[in-house]
Amino acid sequence: MDYEKFIEDQIACIKQTVGGEKAINALSGGVDSSLVTVLGHRALGERLRTVFVDSAMMRKDEPEGVVKIFADMGIPVEIVDAREQFLSALAGLTDPEEKRNAVTDTFYSKVFAKLVKESGAKFLLHGTILTDIEETVAGIKRQHNILSQVGIDTEAAYGYGVIEPLKTLRKDGVRRVAKLAGLPDEIVNRIPFPGPALATRIVGEVTPERLEIVGAATVIVEEELADTGAFQYLAVLLNDRATGIRGNKRQFGRIIVVRCIESTDARTATVTQLSWKKLNRICERIVQIEGVNRCLYDLTPKPPATIEYI
Amino acid sequence: MDYEKFIEDQIACIKQTVGGEKAINALSGGVDSSLVTVLGHRALGERLRTVFVDSAMMRKDEPEGVVKIFADMGIPVEIVDAREQFLSALAGLTDPEEKRNAVTDTFYSKVFAKLVKESGAKFLLHGTILTDIEETVAGIKRQHNILSQVGIDTEAAYGYGVIEPLKTLRKDGVRRVAKLAGLPDEIVNRIPFPGPALATRIVGEVTPERLEIVGAATVIVEEELADTGAFQYLAVLLNDRATGIRGNKRQFGRIIVVRCIESTDARTATVTQLSWKKLNRICERIVQIEGVNRCLYDLTPKPPATIEYI
Repeated sequence: MDYEKFIEDQIACIKQTVGGEKAINALSGGVDSSLVTVLGHRALGERLRTVFVDSAMMRKDEPEGVVKIFADMGIPVEIVDAREQFLSALAGLTDPEEKRNAVTDTFYSKVFAKLVKESGAKFLLHGTILTDIEETVAGIKRQHNILSQVGIDTEAAYGYGVIEPLKTLRKDGVRRVAKLAGLPDEIVNRIPFPGPALATRIVGEVTPERLEIVGAATVIVEEELADTGAFQYLAVLLNDRATGIRGNKRQFGRIIVVRCIESTDARTATVTQLSWKKLNRICERIVQIEGVNRCLYDLTPKPPATIEYI
Repeated sequence: MDYEKFIEDQIACIKQTVGGEKAINALSGGVDSSLVTVLGHRALGERLRTVFVDSAMMRKDEPEGVVKIFADMGIPVEIVDAREQFLSALAGLTDPEEKRNAVTDTFYSKVFAKLVKESGAKFLLHGTILTDIEETVAGIKRQHNILSQVGIDTEAAYGYGVIEPLKTLRKDGVRRVAKLAGLPDEIVNRIPFPGPALATRIVGEVTPERLEIVGAATVIVEEELADTGAFQYLAVLLNDRATGIRGNKRQFGRIIVVRCIESTDARTATVTQLSWKKLNRICERIVQIEGVNRCLYDLTPKPPATIEYI
């Protein structure tokens, strides 16, 4: 595939579709939305408004870090604080599908609908990739960013059209194009992080306290596994608890699952064969998180497991 | 410690305490209750009635296998079918403490009280060991077989006195005495298996369907890990579920945790550093169990985790 031509074609296509109108896009800092941001700014310049929605479900210090990277490239990004909206939409929900729907609905019909109205944008640029579409259509997983493919008419529902410049690429293709488009390596090689972010890393209810636990575990896992070159690594907080001992007393503690996988396109994955030194070190750090007394390593390839838990 | 003398002392003590009365004991096939059975039969002969209570929570084919081993030593063991009683006592319970209490109560006040009454036994011989007592008194864990230490007056509550010949020994001491007392190696070296059996290996409700899953996982783990020489290895069925893929469709599947530990006395434990070949093989077999799509390995030493999950 001619990736240079792909870039030119997509920029031309965005220009043509948007015409003289304005567009908007949400940047998460992952490679997909980062590439869309770059393509969109080349096509539209100041007519593209790029926002970073702080959903309270991002990694620690993520909003400021991502804004800084794009500022260095001359692309302005606004941070939108939507933490309260996401947290209240998720309160009390434990069913994975309901949680995903709450995130999708809050993102598109609440937070985005308002931004679109304010800005007068007629189009939303979106980082959907081929694997997202395939898995959603196959019924494996409802990706948060799949709308038209599951029958949501965005113009009727939300008041804007959706443009998906990456929908013919898989993750490996996105990384090549991102590199070619001049994105820095820390974005090009960034491990995938799902749109509903830490909400997909929590089995059971999403609460500020539980977000804090899984966030702390995510920091540890990313620090410890950055040098593995693995495709993706993550920490999951289970809803189950297990007995343990703290200060010689019984503690009914929380359980963190660590997952680290090898893959090229996320369609299939094998488990990274970490050394025991590394596994022990991760466990030691994880069980120092307040209330956590178990650390498990996921041994399951995809299939039969998916990469994420919900 | 002089273990020959320990055996003589305990036999003498049992004789003296029981006097001309009858006694009863429950054999699970673990090394503790097996040793008590041998000591009791040497002390009391036919005045000791030994029963194997089938709680529906034993490993596969356990009742028949254990009876055969003792028949070969000339010790008769009766199988008591209490499967319905245990399953109905556990139905609907998810709290670990309530589950343990239901097992204890069914075992002692329902099944045993009836057997004691029938047999006219005035004493129950019990395989409590020192670690059980210490952990219960410390509030780490309510061992199912700890009664007087938590204030249960067995004579008033259940109508019989309790004799605990092993209560000064830890697991390593029990194994030495068992060897000396002539128990076969398959009993002496048997990995510990908790009294409430598979009920402690199920997080959430104990149902026949869930017992079948954790039972199948237990067979796999015991087959695969028998040659490790590890202190204990087990499979736990979590209550949480996770997404997976079966036949190209999304499956919300069950999660099995594998735990394998090194220890001398169960007071502390480290995790066995299994090879990746072994871990992958176990995972491959576990995810072939109907409905299971994740297999996790527990990385946590004791403390801060306990060996079991509930």
